[in-house]
Amino acid sequence: MCPDIDTITYGLANILDKDRGWGISDDSFKFLEQMKTFGQENWFRIGDRDLALHVVRTNLLKEGKTLSSITELIRKSFSIPTVILPASDNHIETRIETAQGDMHIQEFWVKNHAEPEIKGIRYDGISKADANIKAVELIRNSDLVVIAPGNPISSIGPIISLPSIRKELTSRRSTVVAISPIIGNSAFSGPASKYMEAMGVESSPYGVALYYKDVASNLVISDFDTAYEKKIHSLGINTHKTNIVMQNEEEEMKLSNFVLEKFNIA
Amino acid sequence: MCPDIDTITYGLANILDKDRGWGISDDSFKFLEQMKTFGQENWFRIGDRDLALHVVRTNLLKEGKTLSSITELIRKSFSIPTVILPASDNHIETRIETAQGDMHIQEFWVKNHAEPEIKGIRYDGISKADANIKAVELIRNSDLVVIAPGNPISSIGPIISLPSIRKELTSRRSTVVAISPIIGNSAFSGPASKYMEAMGVESSPYGVALYYKDVASNLVISDFDTAYEKKIHSLGINTHKTNIVMQNEEEEMKLSNFVLEKFNIA
Repeated sequence: MCPDIDTITYGLANILDKDRGWGISDDSFKFLEQMKTFGQENWFRIGDRDLALHVVRTNLLKEGKTLSSITELIRKSFSIPTVILPASDNHIETRIETAQGDMHIQEFWVKNHAEPEIKGIRYDGISKADANIKAVELIRNSDLVVIAPGNPISSIGPIISLPSIRKELTSRRSTVVAISPIIGNSAFSGPASKYMEAMGVESSPYGVALYYKDVASNLVISDFDTAYEKKIHSLGINTHKTNIVMQNEEEEMKLSNFVLEKFNIA
Repeated sequence: MCPDIDTITYGLANILDKDRGWGISDDSFKFLEQMKTFGQENWFRIGDRDLALHVVRTNLLKEGKTLSSITELIRKSFSIPTVILPASDNHIETRIETAQGDMHIQEFWVKNHAEPEIKGIRYDGISKADANIKAVELIRNSDLVVIAPGNPISSIGPIISLPSIRKELTSRRSTVVAISPIIGNSAFSGPASKYMEAMGVESSPYGVALYYKDVASNLVISDFDTAYEKKIHSLGINTHKTNIVMQNEEEEMKLSNFVLEKFNIA
């Protein structure tokens, strides 16, 4: 699985299960229900249609195809016009070190309900990974780079830990804008706060700014977070305030237009 | 896949798709439909629930479990009271040699609609395979052995090609009864006639008798096949005539009772 690529793919194909935040809407779970009768693990709710993508990708990876070529094939299968570029073609896996042992991030979050005490978080394979050259070039040639309000540690962290992507963003940080996934001390959804604290980063818009300070000089924060602005500015980061909670398509469009207008992009 | 074990398992679990003759009734095909959108092969109509069995078995085989222990686990998962014993724990694969090349039997039958000209049929792995000792013992300790009207070449052939099973049946052939899958010159269903002819065996009740003569001294044939009796008797095989076409449960019960009564088994 590549949870972020998959969710982006399904989202752009207009088949994302928005209630769950991942997987395909109206999918069935017959495969998984049958696996359960055989006493197999079934904590990861993979639907019957969703399963096909993971099987195809795993098979093609085994055949030696790159993640980016497979992502491209899948994008075309869904007739998605937007380019989707993985940050790297190498295997990078986020592992959570807990009081109950070392586990895959999905095992921690889905199977163990984020309950084990976190001792550390690491990206296995990151030191040997090369950035996808096409992603580096796209960053170089874009008018604006927007870092979505994804989980800074589990979604964005591995990407900006790749040296050539980090270098590219750092050299153009005045036209990189991140959107905070946190209001006050709480993430909108998911384990962002928990992971940030585990990495020694304060769970707040200031913590987000601190985490992104080398790669972005702009941060979109909530209207409610005026109190954090001065500290954020002291990091050399501009703040832009608006509603950052997106609960429907209208709010999504509003936020994206807000960002584009701020940077004079039509 | 183990088509015969699977069909027996689903049949005994009362979930067999009787119209197709294999797979699970009321299964869905979302996984396969999605695979098709990715340009993957989808000639084998595996349902979403059916897929789980093949994945579990493949995983357990890779972990080093034996086919018979896996079959037992699956049987228990379905609460099937009847013992199901694979003939061997070794990998045996039926290959069809055709004018268009060597292919797996399912590739020949399902993908290529049995159209390529058959040059030969072989059971890969049979010479290195050992019979399942439990199956040999069960044959030894049974009052009667009934060879179902399955395909003699693709379903029964590999089993009776295993030396210790063949030896066991041969030594007790007076209490082994086969049911002909053929009336006149035609098999009820499937490629039995085609495979028999490819193996140089006449497609008729006599051909069936000839194929089974070492392992069975009794053959149940159709009421319509009186003409073949004399030739069959000349092989040292008794004939028992009744309706051998089973189109519903009543006809299935009738045929099985006919056999049990013939051999005085209550």
